[in-house]
Amino acid sequence: MKVRADRLEKDIEEINRFNSTPDHGISRSTFTEEYIGAINYILKEIEKIGADVRIMRGGNLRARLKGTDNNAPAVMIGSHIDTVFKGGMFDGIVGTVTSLEVLRAISENKIPHKNPIDFVIFVEEDGSRFLSVLLGSRIWAGKIKDEDLSKILDKDEISYFEAMTKSGLVPQDESILDGKKIKAMIEPHIEQSRVLESRSIPIGIVEAIAGIKQLEVTIEGVSNHAGATPMNLRNDALCGAAEIILNSEKLASQNGTSVATVGHVEVSPGKNNIIPGKVILTLDIRDRDDVTLNEITNRIINSIGPTCNNRGLIYSIKQVSYTKPVLLSKRVVEVLENSAKKQGINTLKMVSGAVHDSSVVAELTNVGMIFVPSKDGRSHCPEEYTDLKYIEMAANILLESVLELSK
Amino acid sequence: MKVRADRLEKDIEEINRFNSTPDHGISRSTFTEEYIGAINYILKEIEKIGADVRIMRGGNLRARLKGTDNNAPAVMIGSHIDTVFKGGMFDGIVGTVTSLEVLRAISENKIPHKNPIDFVIFVEEDGSRFLSVLLGSRIWAGKIKDEDLSKILDKDEISYFEAMTKSGLVPQDESILDGKKIKAMIEPHIEQSRVLESRSIPIGIVEAIAGIKQLEVTIEGVSNHAGATPMNLRNDALCGAAEIILNSEKLASQNGTSVATVGHVEVSPGKNNIIPGKVILTLDIRDRDDVTLNEITNRIINSIGPTCNNRGLIYSIKQVSYTKPVLLSKRVVEVLENSAKKQGINTLKMVSGAVHDSSVVAELTNVGMIFVPSKDGRSHCPEEYTDLKYIEMAANILLESVLELSK
Repeated sequence: MKVRADRLEKDIEEINRFNSTPDHGISRSTFTEEYIGAINYILKEIEKIGADVRIMRGGNLRARLKGTDNNAPAVMIGSHIDTVFKGGMFDGIVGTVTSLEVLRAISENKIPHKNPIDFVIFVEEDGSRFLSVLLGSRIWAGKIKDEDLSKILDKDEISYFEAMTKSGLVPQDESILDGKKIKAMIEPHIEQSRVLESRSIPIGIVEAIAGIKQLEVTIEGVSNHAGATPMNLRNDALCGAAEIILNSEKLASQNGTSVATVGHVEVSPGKNNIIPGKVILTLDIRDRDDVTLNEITNRIINSIGPTCNNRGLIYSIKQVSYTKPVLLSKRVVEVLENSAKKQGINTLKMVSGAVHDSSVVAELTNVGMIFVPSKDGRSHCPEEYTDLKYIEMAANILLESVLELSK
Repeated sequence: MKVRADRLEKDIEEINRFNSTPDHGISRSTFTEEYIGAINYILKEIEKIGADVRIMRGGNLRARLKGTDNNAPAVMIGSHIDTVFKGGMFDGIVGTVTSLEVLRAISENKIPHKNPIDFVIFVEEDGSRFLSVLLGSRIWAGKIKDEDLSKILDKDEISYFEAMTKSGLVPQDESILDGKKIKAMIEPHIEQSRVLESRSIPIGIVEAIAGIKQLEVTIEGVSNHAGATPMNLRNDALCGAAEIILNSEKLASQNGTSVATVGHVEVSPGKNNIIPGKVILTLDIRDRDDVTLNEITNRIINSIGPTCNNRGLIYSIKQVSYTKPVLLSKRVVEVLENSAKKQGINTLKMVSGAVHDSSVVAELTNVGMIFVPSKDGRSHCPEEYTDLKYIEMAANILLESVLELSK
């Protein structure tokens, strides 16, 4: 038994009709008209399957296909349908349509399974409306208090609670997600990088989700006239920042498994004829291993002092966030690998550098992820693209694995 | 005969009362209420002296002290009173108050001089209202057409012509500044750097004004997920920019006389968790010698290609402006040095890295500049400071030199 690629293709097209920026990528912000449009399309498809739909805590959606033992813990599959502003057609959607198609395939083929199978859609994964990622899964997991839903605001100061209520996704079940009631969870997702593409491997099996340390570094020198100040009398904060950027790149590259990125730089006063007196930069450092993450972070931090001292600059470093790495389930990884092998699909064990709702659920139960290649590694942009054949492979691996886990 | 320091101090205080940002440095934008307030204070002082006041082409002010031969070309002194937003008390003002005091000293001591002595205040030197520096002197020098005064707009779309007319500074003499009618010009000014301070020399005599090449460099890489993309699969535009910043610094430093500054950097998309796909940076390169300026610019430009090629980045370079270096008058420099020597004041021959109205006038006649030290090299900021004793020295050198040149 296999999934049907034509239905995967149709689902991707239909969901992406709900888009507030046609011709400029896909924008489907949480709880908006477009979001609810896409949810309603999916609900109609679920209705045909005959699964039980419930709106869970935080507005997360769950469609349950009953098993032969409905007291057994569920096997959970799914992803999200919100996008960043002017994002792409595949982020979140690959996990959504493959899970929906797996539900269809099992249902129409009437394949017996012991455990219930839950197809879920997590709310606000990308954080583009309420500026906080993994929000739906964190609310469902009880990491955010009920009363705080009224305090989480979008840029128009509309609260999460208000937006959720107005959208009609009013929770029918306010219970906190219980790890004991979920046997395993699998989330297919686009890779968002070029690793699979560069090695011509169609499917990645995620073993771990990298931990993240985010720092903000402030460098202060002396803002002076660009013409009047000789090179040897300068304390140029931007030249110091440039050294820090290159040192961070070098240290992360030498390390092998780590990545370090300076994504945002703010130069003051920022005039073409004034030596920069102040620079604020962000550092995003990731590794699959917590010890290594701390080591590489310290190595980068320790390189900042000498750079600034040599240049007569002062600096301060603030840790903005720290998310520990998450190890995914060895058992689920094994099931996914075996399913792929049976189908003759080549796979690569890999680390997810991005966080996913799976990161949250992995604290509660056994989790696995399936990655499909992203063309040129692009994601969160209109150019985001994954060939349908890879999505079909991911769906078939998901189908086989779900049946194995829910036997 | 000497100038009076108490009057210099009072003039500085009185002029700086006219300030639209009290407690946040000095803001005196061209043709505003504050600008006209300061002009009126100066006009009252000139009235006491009995000099002939005329509003010249472009709203520039000229106060003429007649000489014994009024057909002889004038000796011109002066500077500007406009400031950058939240600037300091001394930029422009040092040249203004020393020139005013020299006029007073000559007048009250009834010192005979052949040539007329013109005290001038140039409009909009710092370009903070109409976003174009040296505007008043360039208009007076005929470098800007009459009809264009209505096209030069401030941020509220008020034209130079309209603002000038409303301020009451309506030209009484529309003639273009004629080099043949000016024997020489001397402008005292703050140094805007730390060269004098670092060498404990109280007075600088400017030999040349540096030429400037301003470039805009655009670097394009691939914007990708900061977590998902391994270091070896990146084309990080900001890392490329950091190399360009450090190479420019190194090349200018090696050269000895040149300076190169990256003052403005724009990073896209500028998110802490996305690898920068695009960076635009400005390069401001200066040297006193035109051949050297072109050489160092080419060396910097030639270093950009290999940096970008090694990193798989594409780039483009746009020349935004090119101002040739200006050699000041050897004769005026000699007069200034002799005047200082007679008074036992130690001087340093130097290059002005900043442009001044003197740059414009130097194309027409013999020009010299006197620099006074800037504390910590600061300028264009509230911290701008020059000790009164240096301003007094500059005024005495100016007095002696003007008398020598107008004998």
